[in-house]
Amino acid sequence: MALPIFVLNGPNLNLLGTREPEIYGTQTLKDVEALCVKRAQSLGHSIAFRQSNSEAELISWIQEARSCASGIVLNAAGYTHTSIALLDALQAYSGPVIEVHFSNIFRRDSFRQHSYISLGASGVICGLGAHGYELAIDAIDRLISEKQNA
Amino acid sequence: MALPIFVLNGPNLNLLGTREPEIYGTQTLKDVEALCVKRAQSLGHSIAFRQSNSEAELISWIQEARSCASGIVLNAAGYTHTSIALLDALQAYSGPVIEVHFSNIFRRDSFRQHSYISLGASGVICGLGAHGYELAIDAIDRLISEKQNA
Amino acid sequence: MALPIFVLNGPNLNLLGTREPEIYGTQTLKDVEALCVKRAQSLGHSIAFRQSNSEAELISWIQEARSCASGIVLNAAGYTHTSIALLDALQAYSGPVIEVHFSNIFRRDSFRQHSYISLGASGVICGLGAHGYELAIDAIDRLISEKQNA
Amino acid sequence: MALPIFVLNGPNLNLLGTREPEIYGTQTLKDVEALCVKRAQSLGHSIAFRQSNSEAELISWIQEARSCASGIVLNAAGYTHTSIALLDALQAYSGPVIEVHFSNIFRRDSFRQHSYISLGASGVICGLGAHGYELAIDAIDRLISEKQNA
Amino acid sequence: MALPIFVLNGPNLNLLGTREPEIYGTQTLKDVEALCVKRAQSLGHSIAFRQSNSEAELISWIQEARSCASGIVLNAAGYTHTSIALLDALQAYSGPVIEVHFSNIFRRDSFRQHSYISLGASGVICGLGAHGYELAIDAIDRLISEKQNA
Amino acid sequence: MALPIFVLNGPNLNLLGTREPEIYGTQTLKDVEALCVKRAQSLGHSIAFRQSNSEAELISWIQEARSCASGIVLNAAGYTHTSIALLDALQAYSGPVIEVHFSNIFRRDSFRQHSYISLGASGVICGLGAHGYELAIDAIDRLISEKQNA
Amino acid sequence: MALPIFVLNGPNLNLLGTREPEIYGTQTLKDVEALCVKRAQSLGHSIAFRQSNSEAELISWIQEARSCASGIVLNAAGYTHTSIALLDALQAYSGPVIEVHFSNIFRRDSFRQHSYISLGASGVICGLGAHGYELAIDAIDRLISEKQNA
Amino acid sequence: MALPIFVLNGPNLNLLGTREPEIYGTQTLKDVEALCVKRAQSLGHSIAFRQSNSEAELISWIQEARSCASGIVLNAAGYTHTSIALLDALQAYSGPVIEVHFSNIFRRDSFRQHSYISLGASGVICGLGAHGYELAIDAIDRLISEKQNA
Amino acid sequence: MALPIFVLNGPNLNLLGTREPEIYGTQTLKDVEALCVKRAQSLGHSIAFRQSNSEAELISWIQEARSCASGIVLNAAGYTHTSIALLDALQAYSGPVIEVHFSNIFRRDSFRQHSYISLGASGVICGLGAHGYELAIDAIDRLISEKQNA
Amino acid sequence: MALPIFVLNGPNLNLLGTREPEIYGTQTLKDVEALCVKRAQSLGHSIAFRQSNSEAELISWIQEARSCASGIVLNAAGYTHTSIALLDALQAYSGPVIEVHFSNIFRRDSFRQHSYISLGASGVICGLGAHGYELAIDAIDRLISEKQNA
Amino acid sequence: MALPIFVLNGPNLNLLGTREPEIYGTQTLKDVEALCVKRAQSLGHSIAFRQSNSEAELISWIQEARSCASGIVLNAAGYTHTSIALLDALQAYSGPVIEVHFSNIFRRDSFRQHSYISLGASGVICGLGAHGYELAIDAIDRLISEKQNA
Amino acid sequence: MALPIFVLNGPNLNLLGTREPEIYGTQTLKDVEALCVKRAQSLGHSIAFRQSNSEAELISWIQEARSCASGIVLNAAGYTHTSIALLDALQAYSGPVIEVHFSNIFRRDSFRQHSYISLGASGVICGLGAHGYELAIDAIDRLISEKQNA
Repeated sequence: MALPIFVLNGPNLNLLGTREPEIYGTQTLKDVEALCVKRAQSLGHSIAFRQSNSEAELISWIQEARSCASGIVLNAAGYTHTSIALLDALQAYSGPVIEVHFSNIFRRDSFRQHSYISLGASGVICGLGAHGYELAIDAIDRLISEKQNA
Repeated sequence: MALPIFVLNGPNLNLLGTREPEIYGTQTLKDVEALCVKRAQSLGHSIAFRQSNSEAELISWIQEARSCASGIVLNAAGYTHTSIALLDALQAYSGPVIEVHFSNIFRRDSFRQHSYISLGASGVICGLGAHGYELAIDAIDRLISEKQNA
Repeated sequence: MALPIFVLNGPNLNLLGTREPEIYGTQTLKDVEALCVKRAQSLGHSIAFRQSNSEAELISWIQEARSCASGIVLNAAGYTHTSIALLDALQAYSGPVIEVHFSNIFRRDSFRQHSYISLGASGVICGLGAHGYELAIDAIDRLISEKQNA
Repeated sequence: MALPIFVLNGPNLNLLGTREPEIYGTQTLKDVEALCVKRAQSLGHSIAFRQSNSEAELISWIQEARSCASGIVLNAAGYTHTSIALLDALQAYSGPVIEVHFSNIFRRDSFRQHSYISLGASGVICGLGAHGYELAIDAIDRLISEKQNA
Repeated sequence: MALPIFVLNGPNLNLLGTREPEIYGTQTLKDVEALCVKRAQSLGHSIAFRQSNSEAELISWIQEARSCASGIVLNAAGYTHTSIALLDALQAYSGPVIEVHFSNIFRRDSFRQHSYISLGASGVICGLGAHGYELAIDAIDRLISEKQNA
Repeated sequence: MALPIFVLNGPNLNLLGTREPEIYGTQTLKDVEALCVKRAQSLGHSIAFRQSNSEAELISWIQEARSCASGIVLNAAGYTHTSIALLDALQAYSGPVIEVHFSNIFRRDSFRQHSYISLGASGVICGLGAHGYELAIDAIDRLISEKQNA
Repeated sequence: MALPIFVLNGPNLNLLGTREPEIYGTQTLKDVEALCVKRAQSLGHSIAFRQSNSEAELISWIQEARSCASGIVLNAAGYTHTSIALLDALQAYSGPVIEVHFSNIFRRDSFRQHSYISLGASGVICGLGAHGYELAIDAIDRLISEKQNA
Repeated sequence: MALPIFVLNGPNLNLLGTREPEIYGTQTLKDVEALCVKRAQSLGHSIAFRQSNSEAELISWIQEARSCASGIVLNAAGYTHTSIALLDALQAYSGPVIEVHFSNIFRRDSFRQHSYISLGASGVICGLGAHGYELAIDAIDRLISEKQNA
Repeated sequence: MALPIFVLNGPNLNLLGTREPEIYGTQTLKDVEALCVKRAQSLGHSIAFRQSNSEAELISWIQEARSCASGIVLNAAGYTHTSIALLDALQAYSGPVIEVHFSNIFRRDSFRQHSYISLGASGVICGLGAHGYELAIDAIDRLISEKQNA
Repeated sequence: MALPIFVLNGPNLNLLGTREPEIYGTQTLKDVEALCVKRAQSLGHSIAFRQSNSEAELISWIQEARSCASGIVLNAAGYTHTSIALLDALQAYSGPVIEVHFSNIFRRDSFRQHSYISLGASGVICGLGAHGYELAIDAIDRLISEKQNA
Repeated sequence: MALPIFVLNGPNLNLLGTREPEIYGTQTLKDVEALCVKRAQSLGHSIAFRQSNSEAELISWIQEARSCASGIVLNAAGYTHTSIALLDALQAYSGPVIEVHFSNIFRRDSFRQHSYISLGASGVICGLGAHGYELAIDAIDRLISEKQNA
Repeated sequence: MALPIFVLNGPNLNLLGTREPEIYGTQTLKDVEALCVKRAQSLGHSIAFRQSNSEAELISWIQEARSCASGIVLNAAGYTHTSIALLDALQAYSGPVIEVHFSNIFRRDSFRQHSYISLGASGVICGLGAHGYELAIDAIDRLISEKQNA
């Protein structure tokens, strides 16, 4: 049976829908999970959807993905810009990785415009809110297929 | 009848498939256009797919979009990093704009990691090759719907 | 009954009084807590005084403050200069926040002179040792009053 | 008969009056031309008023000015900040050059605060909207007189 | 009766005409004042023309302008590049402010190319010698009219 | 008899209450003085409360403090960010110095985020409006006591 | 009885031997531990060998070392370049500290070339793979002896 | 029959001989062409000598070179320092490319000292006026020979 | 009769001998004046020795020197690093100017290592305490002689 | 017979033991040589121990090592931070190279924290005084063995 | 009889042909000398071809050239990027100077992209291997002729 | 008998009087030596006056000064800005050191405005030509006296 796609969410994303809605929208993380599950199922994948405020836990999940996930969708939130340790974990993972952000980080504070995560990701999708997660799952699906056909 | 989505391609993208395939893949721009048309049709949209090496022509097409396009997918290629004039044109356009890049520009030369275009785009999708264009059309479709429902 | 003021302390502050006393003084964190409790009581507030070496735990406490605290006094210690995730948590909190530091960080190493926390705080008090905590509680009290009177 | 003053306008200025009116005002480029013509006539000059989105065309017009214009008023818009080629063209022109901007570029994005054009201009006028063009024509008129009297 | 326009001149401008004439020309400040008075009168304004080497005095004059001037023309000379206190004074003034410089500061030493004053000015005119003052008075006149008609 | 605490205010603070109230509040400097006097009296201190737009006068007051003041509360306003001469004066003063700012300068323009004054101050309090002055007097009082007990 | 030497390993080092072997070699962390134990025993020391992905746990271990370890060998991995909190913990430890890295970090990405850890370490050894750990234990042994003889 | 060598000249080079002769000399572009033709003929090559002010046209010529030129001599003039799009075109060309400049760009304005073109060129020749073109043709000839003999 | 040499001293130098003696020594400014007078007399010059905390007053004295001084010895103290207005005054003075500092400013804080004054001075002497003033007078004397003999 | 290990010492290291002992310790270079010889002999190696103040001589010794040394221990002292020529020599040497420093250069002046040598070294050992040389010889021995066994 | 052309080679160039051949090619410096002699003879010049690892020797040769050489071809190798002393020597030489590099230094490490030598050279030729030396001799020959005809 | 003062001159100073006289004057180094000898004799000192193009020789002379010189006057010329090794030698010398430059280095190229030498010198004298050497000898004499009297 196929491995699930890990959809991993970083610090403060548990507040989604209640925090700065003009930036992050009104959908809750629960809503986003539902969208992801639905999109994944339509493509024949399952989803492991998780959130943590802990950098260490996110690292451990990415390490776990080495044997347990067919791909990773990662929104590292505030750790995106500061965590080389997360990048190291991603670089030790050989499957497809898509970096996602709700907002267009390139239109925000200058310190939010640099991402260490991008150096360990196949692709980046940002500015599209929850829909970005759906597109990221499409992308993972496509990358898995390409790999199988390569 | 609905306006088409403009899919605009910048300098050297006419060489696609023949230039640095390890970075840009082997699909030609013709192939990309076919994928876009198909995806758009499945969502009920038409496509105006164009390429130009001229910054001025790209500006004019974005200006034209003000009255003629429901959304813009823009891969400005080398102008991404240097053209404030293209940004100005985008900022005068009120419809949805998605910036696309074949490669993950954040893993390339440092001068390719900054984009003026991002400041005028709703969202950014990069590193996913031709598939990124398809996802961009999905995103435009979604943004149009959200606007109509707003 | 009124919510308590959260007084949150970051990494290594549990060593207070035993570590580099020429910079941080000889009072222990226990002493600081006692001062805070006393000052708060004199103003009619209660205190929840906590310390953690974990960025994630600090984030969670700030999230908890959204429903459980009338204000936050935060000494993020080493995370002050590196944690965007803590800033994100603060920006999701609508009550008053005062940033405190024992030492005058502007007279120390250059990398200690920038604070992400300041972007999420109403005010900053530094260089005044444990007394700075007392003043911070005064400030929280004042900001709560102003808000109630606004 | 005296040579005309060239009033040259760069990319997107054809959108004037319809684009970001809070920055650029509601006058159209047609209106600005009318003001320029009137002001120039009152001083005994004629005007050649042009706009182009093309850097190359702007360069060619400045080259043409070498034998055909008594002075240049130049609003290079987005090319102001990026075009060394335009600067080179100006430096090959020996008549008076005034750089104009509708908005006060020093109060906008940091990348709009540097101008290559300034290095090739006698003077700079910005922040005064269409009126800045009229003053620029006054300035050209004065510089021509001074030269003739020198 | 209408308030006068303040024309304020910063340090060393009292030496005008005797100092580095290849940069600043041979007109004295007296000459410039005469030009300003004449231009203002032709537009129905009076002028209060002053010079000081003192940053504090310039600040006080700008403060005085709050109740006594219809607009300010300011050549802050050497303080242009270093005085945040002058900027603060300007930001507390609600009338029109035009920054003027005799020389084109963008073609001089790099430390002369940044202006704090610009952040508090409606418009900037530089490189046009004494004529720049006349144009600045035109601009003030226009801005007053626009305001009255708004 | 004990020496007074000097409360020194820099350029434009005389405009307090009438200038940019969204940043600086509606209290006048007179109001702030009254608060300071009251707080100082409650702690057994007298106050010498002064304001000047002149950097030289501020320097002279700090020099005067060497023999005439038990401590200094200093809001150097615009000179905070530019005056090394004020820092030099502070460094020649051996009593306690508290730097105060009405607004949280770390959330404003980048050029307002650096303070030379901090290098000559025991502590910094910012973002708390007039209340920050009261806390600063508390801090001076505490520092004087600690010194006497040392 | 003598206290053990703490050998502390940071995030992702648990993957050693399976991750990017061209950079980190094929030995597992278990292998490295065995080498350390053997080397330490030959010098009359015991070893406490630990790994964690958690910055907080690493901080706590360093704090524990204050009463429980004769020296610290620290490979902070990804936290090397980002953690001021770890530096603070080291600066509160008075015994010898040796910073170790498997690879020569000065030949890798520029963001891997700066270490906060170095500011809290007696010495640095990098680029020597697992052998570097053995040399670090030699160095700790030597520093302990020197201290005892001082 | 052998393909010609493309000798491509960027913006404002059509003014050669009439513009800033102290920097660029008195030879016209016609003269340079004659020198190039003569030198090429002596080596058995033909020349396609072109000039354009248009970045797009230069890009198109480089693209054309992919099937029509045995090598490229490129003086991109003002675009040298700003055009990533030209670099992209060069990187898609597999033949030898020599970058030429009339003046020694390293002794001019700092913004003229960086070249994007260099990243796509085999070699660089600057500071030798028209003679540099002749040497560039020698170099192309040599590189073609080496390739044929490789 | 010959004009005197102006020896001008900037802010806080009136505190000399009482302020940070480990940096500035124990001689008072009075002592320094006596040394200068004596040295000048031995060379046949008179001295006008002045000190001011006011940037404006220093500017005015330099302006006065244009008709009243044969040379200037200037220790601008804290204004050395921040005052372009003082530089402008010096650049309008045609006689010899020697910049003096008691301490070696290149071994102090980084912000004390840059001098605007140097751009307007013939020579610089620093690190030699009061003796540096004597050497500066020697230098002025020599420069005056050279000029007279030129 | 095996080639010796070169232990090369740069400028001013001949002063060891007599210069700034608080940084460099009290052992002389003679002492360090003795330690190196002893350690090398215990591992079956001989040592060629040299010191020079001349960059050229150091380069020549590294070139000599190409045929005459089994490995290089290099303490380039002041040239560490400035010599690209030394780096070039090292990059032309295929044997193992260990960079050594007596002090922990990362805790000293900022200009001592960058090393060109590191780019040409297998490993770096610093902060361990003369003991660092012994460890470096261990490391060379290990690297030679690994190579022979590879 | 005419003076020879000096062809001066800096540190490590004696290793040519044996060092990093993928960058520097397989020709030895002897081969390069032969090419230079041959090319020079064909143009009626003699050659003095030298190499040194010593900055001082290179300086002395350039000084010697003042009376003994008709021109200088200089490949300063690693000193290119670090030696102001070499630049000073070149600036005291009035004949033609051509800077040569085997590789295209603009495509290598960033610290190899800046040249002090360029500031003292007429022209620069790089990326053309040994052939670059031949072209440099052509250029010297041409510059000598132009000078004689001037 | 007293030790001589070392007057050490760096690269290219042997060309003095023949090189760029508009910067360095027309006196030869021989002339400067004569001035130094005369000035020293008048103060009861002897002089050892030397020049070298070799950084290593300058280092060795400074080392020699440790036992053979009562003070050092050093004009390190081009090495001033690049040699940390020279600084290290100076820091190992306990007598007085005066840094001298013929020209005012702060008015020249930006790369000539930073001096490593200043960090190892008591004082700096620049811009005064050969006379600066005489003043430097005065300063050495004074510093020796102060030391003897301390």
